[in-house]
Amino acid sequence: MADLPAHTEIGGTTGPIRGSKKIHVAAKSGSGIRVAMREIHLEGGEDPVRVYDTSGPYTDPEALIDISTGLHELRREWIRDRGDVEEVTQREVKPEDNGQLGPDRSGGVAPFPKVRQKVLRAKPGSNVTQMHYARQGIITPEMEYVAERENLGREQLKEYTRDGESFGASIPDYVTPEFVRDEVARGRAIIPSNINHPESEPMAIGRNFLVKINANIGNSAVASDVASEVDKMVWAIRWGADTVMDLSTGRNIHDTREWIIRNSPVPIGTVPIYQALEKVGGVAEDLTWEIFRDTLIEQAEQGVDYFTIHAGVRLPYVPLAANRVTGIVSRGGSIMAKWCLAHHQESFLYEKFDEISEICAAYDVAYSLGDGLRPGSIADANDEAQFAELYTLGELTKRAWEQDVQVMIEGPGHVPMHKIKENMEKQLEACGEAPFYTLGPLTTDIAPGYDHITSGIGAAQIGWYGTAMLCYVTPKEHLGLPDRDDVKVGVVTYKLAAHAADLAKGHPAAQVRDDALSKARFEFRWRDQFNLSLDPDTAEDYHDQTLPAEGAKTAHFCSMCGPKFCSMKISQEVREFAANNPNSDLMFAPKSVEEAEKGMAEMSEVYKDKGQALYLPADEVTKHKTEPAE
Amino acid sequence: MADLPAHTEIGGTTGPIRGSKKIHVAAKSGSGIRVAMREIHLEGGEDPVRVYDTSGPYTDPEALIDISTGLHELRREWIRDRGDVEEVTQREVKPEDNGQLGPDRSGGVAPFPKVRQKVLRAKPGSNVTQMHYARQGIITPEMEYVAERENLGREQLKEYTRDGESFGASIPDYVTPEFVRDEVARGRAIIPSNINHPESEPMAIGRNFLVKINANIGNSAVASDVASEVDKMVWAIRWGADTVMDLSTGRNIHDTREWIIRNSPVPIGTVPIYQALEKVGGVAEDLTWEIFRDTLIEQAEQGVDYFTIHAGVRLPYVPLAANRVTGIVSRGGSIMAKWCLAHHQESFLYEKFDEISEICAAYDVAYSLGDGLRPGSIADANDEAQFAELYTLGELTKRAWEQDVQVMIEGPGHVPMHKIKENMEKQLEACGEAPFYTLGPLTTDIAPGYDHITSGIGAAQIGWYGTAMLCYVTPKEHLGLPDRDDVKVGVVTYKLAAHAADLAKGHPAAQVRDDALSKARFEFRWRDQFNLSLDPDTAEDYHDQTLPAEGAKTAHFCSMCGPKFCSMKISQEVREFAANNPNSDLMFAPKSVEEAEKGMAEMSEVYKDKGQALYLPADEVTKHKTEPAE
Repeated sequence: MADLPAHTEIGGTTGPIRGSKKIHVAAKSGSGIRVAMREIHLEGGEDPVRVYDTSGPYTDPEALIDISTGLHELRREWIRDRGDVEEVTQREVKPEDNGQLGPDRSGGVAPFPKVRQKVLRAKPGSNVTQMHYARQGIITPEMEYVAERENLGREQLKEYTRDGESFGASIPDYVTPEFVRDEVARGRAIIPSNINHPESEPMAIGRNFLVKINANIGNSAVASDVASEVDKMVWAIRWGADTVMDLSTGRNIHDTREWIIRNSPVPIGTVPIYQALEKVGGVAEDLTWEIFRDTLIEQAEQGVDYFTIHAGVRLPYVPLAANRVTGIVSRGGSIMAKWCLAHHQESFLYEKFDEISEICAAYDVAYSLGDGLRPGSIADANDEAQFAELYTLGELTKRAWEQDVQVMIEGPGHVPMHKIKENMEKQLEACGEAPFYTLGPLTTDIAPGYDHITSGIGAAQIGWYGTAMLCYVTPKEHLGLPDRDDVKVGVVTYKLAAHAADLAKGHPAAQVRDDALSKARFEFRWRDQFNLSLDPDTAEDYHDQTLPAEGAKTAHFCSMCGPKFCSMKISQEVREFAANNPNSDLMFAPKSVEEAEKGMAEMSEVYKDKGQALYLPADEVTKHKTEPAE
Repeated sequence: MADLPAHTEIGGTTGPIRGSKKIHVAAKSGSGIRVAMREIHLEGGEDPVRVYDTSGPYTDPEALIDISTGLHELRREWIRDRGDVEEVTQREVKPEDNGQLGPDRSGGVAPFPKVRQKVLRAKPGSNVTQMHYARQGIITPEMEYVAERENLGREQLKEYTRDGESFGASIPDYVTPEFVRDEVARGRAIIPSNINHPESEPMAIGRNFLVKINANIGNSAVASDVASEVDKMVWAIRWGADTVMDLSTGRNIHDTREWIIRNSPVPIGTVPIYQALEKVGGVAEDLTWEIFRDTLIEQAEQGVDYFTIHAGVRLPYVPLAANRVTGIVSRGGSIMAKWCLAHHQESFLYEKFDEISEICAAYDVAYSLGDGLRPGSIADANDEAQFAELYTLGELTKRAWEQDVQVMIEGPGHVPMHKIKENMEKQLEACGEAPFYTLGPLTTDIAPGYDHITSGIGAAQIGWYGTAMLCYVTPKEHLGLPDRDDVKVGVVTYKLAAHAADLAKGHPAAQVRDDALSKARFEFRWRDQFNLSLDPDTAEDYHDQTLPAEGAKTAHFCSMCGPKFCSMKISQEVREFAANNPNSDLMFAPKSVEEAEKGMAEMSEVYKDKGQALYLPADEVTKHKTEPAE
């Protein structure tokens, strides 16, 4: 540990997002639960806007960040107070957990300094899943946290007209803890919350909640700098990732994951078969249930919140993919296909599914049932292989639910727009409304380098139709490993797609931020416009490329048209004139075209009298207000 | 003109797009018409892929590019052979055409060296629009060109299954010149083709043709470098812009436009009110019909192919926008609103509409009826102001059609996803299926800096629903002036959105390119994957950031997973094994899951006999092929 500084810095990734501050909102119940949010402060007397915040303590200037000690354990007492867990000695870390043949860890990642000797597990006979509690009628602090978090500004919106098309979702006007409980109980939402990841801030994934996004990270080859691995996660959540999947392969998988989980305020997902494959030297045929099972326990004890398990890649489905344009494109799917074929045996993931569920129930690891046969091209979308697997995932969902294990279902992939809706409909039907979690889908194959966009188009649509979480795609998809900029672009793209879906579904408070930003834009409050945007830094940077002067940020014109030629300015003049006219009810807020025409004649006279200046000086306004129009 | 080199260079924008070459395909009729396309050559004996090409001679190494002489006049004889035009002396260029108060042009843009003294106009009593010919039953060379251009690979696709949801469009299996004529005659498509822009390569905008995209360019303040103005256009069409709008304001508008049109192989659109406003010193109230009319003739004589005319911003609609969150955001719309209010008079564009149509008919300038009251925020979408104007545009469409003037209709704007379809449906109903031409729409307001994406999401959807042309949005939208990179990102984003729409609509040959690219991806033909993409340079650049070695471009693995961990590779092994198995019909191409299960037992034995190696050596394959499985 000598190579690790006591107080590791994360470069450039901490501190508040500009124009906003972290706040903690107390839950209504008086339970003492305080929910983290971000509040954006506006100029000109406008009310601040509260936004959903995934960034954890990293944006809180009052939080002390030291990645070698990890985050505060928000859920520690909640978990222990339930009285259904016991401390057990953590499974010993083996060299192969880090992809090393010998015990030498040199050149690898240092172990997390505070590696716990004891971890939590359900007491024998206990089940510690949020679904289990929900089905017992128990509202957990996690559920209460979620309810408060999802509501945001809904209370201020009593007079809001609900607007949207939710395709059969049941989005409430106001989210209560009881609503959260009910959604979790019936399997329509999950709250990924491994009892060994008490650092996480509870969040829900479900069709009747805000659409969530996931960012994938993962070490490449040998990660020598652990701070940069943690930084990838911190960077992704700063811009809005609701969960992060650690898809590391190669060496140091175990230690890297420990660093990430201990420092993550969002749920962490993994694909355990990746690590299991490393343990058998990359030879798919050598995988065994025992090695896989041991890997699950290893990861569950570390605190992984959801496992991608490709249990739907059954032996008879493998040949269905042989005539595809792009075969099997899922790594996990192809590993299992190779195993099935080599052994001519049904997948051990499928065969041992109930045993996997037992492990999940003992730690509250949620399933993310993997779509190993998802289409990898437009040509392969919605084919028999894909849907055969989906129906098996539906069968497995019900089996998991028998043990009260939380489940979400992974979905495609590459799908042209006219075939997207069928994916959602079949998933809802086959999987009993378990949350859908899709990768994109990409709506065309012809734009490598722009697949965050080809997939953002599909993601917005499938999110609208009912998908609960969208797995991001970066510009490097199909081409290379994403760097820091790619991760940010991927996250922001998916955040905007998820938000577009929330708007279209009619989430009650979703439009508050759009309205605030548009109002700021119309009123030339440039800084507010930047601060309200998903990426304030880029917005300001782009503005400054054209009009860098500080004065331009308070200028009453756009940088595109200049002061003389601005439609916003002209439009504001029209409106101000309207506001200053005592007959404005008649003239400027007509209920119909006819009514408007009626008021026109009088209005014109007023206007001409004032010398046709739309922007009246203050004294003219006063005069005008007190004197009726001639 | 001393400041202008005889042979002006356009830096970095000419030359073939990598991996492809310009071809000219002779029309079936034997008329001698040769249609420009781009052919992408592939490795491994794959057939080349032909793609739609908007780039003109700039990507043809055999073409001599000299922007001071302009492009070859492809349509010169076609226009003259019809015998309905006469040469007239060009309207004299006035200082105010270039925004100058005096005759001094110094510091401005040099006039185009070949400025014609004579221009074309319809003979008295003649009508030279493509719609007029179409309604006479005449198939023009322009229509023939369009038919060939739209077909691309359709002939090779006889066995293709048509797939898609076109929402009532009538996309033919094969585009004939007669089909084009019929679509133009009934107003469902336009071929913008001013008789004074003979350099243009004919293209169609209509719901039953491929979805098109437009890029906006425009000088900023004083453009001192005319080559860079032309270069903006050349750059935009290189990446796929089907038309270009010159939205210049400020000085030198006339001369800049002349340079652009003389060098443009795509139709050029303008918003004439911008120039008219400059002529009256930027004071909207001072605009008159006479100044506007003179501007129309000035631009029609230069060869502008379509005019955005905001004739739907009627006096009674102005107050409808007063209570909006973002008022009137269209520049043209706000200018006319201000004029209407100041004069308390109906818009002269509306009042004089039939006279404008007469001018359009004399040069074949198409209308792009502007949506001056389009929503500028999510809050204002689909409101009364917007739809009141739309219905007026429908009324004007019919009036234009009475004079056989081609018409398309501009649409929004900012619209949440659930309100997009209503825009398309109302437009089709109100405007008699005249082509719809939308700006985005942006599906959320909260992502300035990413509005090419917020709008690309909306554009793909509205294109799918039936919009014929999508006006691009760059990352700088709302923030600043797009630079060269922004223009490219905007064009490629819209190209992929349009293509996603073509796929979803079920255009017969649209999927050819996706399939070719996906096949190349699956077979690790990296160069083919790059060359088939919309932006080969970026695709290769991203690849090289991870694996720069030249050898990696022929490597049989992905740069993301490395050689050992590649699903594509495993999947290929599975497939190769299937191909090498004499019982593969049974095993690997089952018609159903049941059939697959039947073949499984035998297959497994074969596999085990071969030592479980999925990738059999060549001699094993041969042996295997000649010997039945034990």
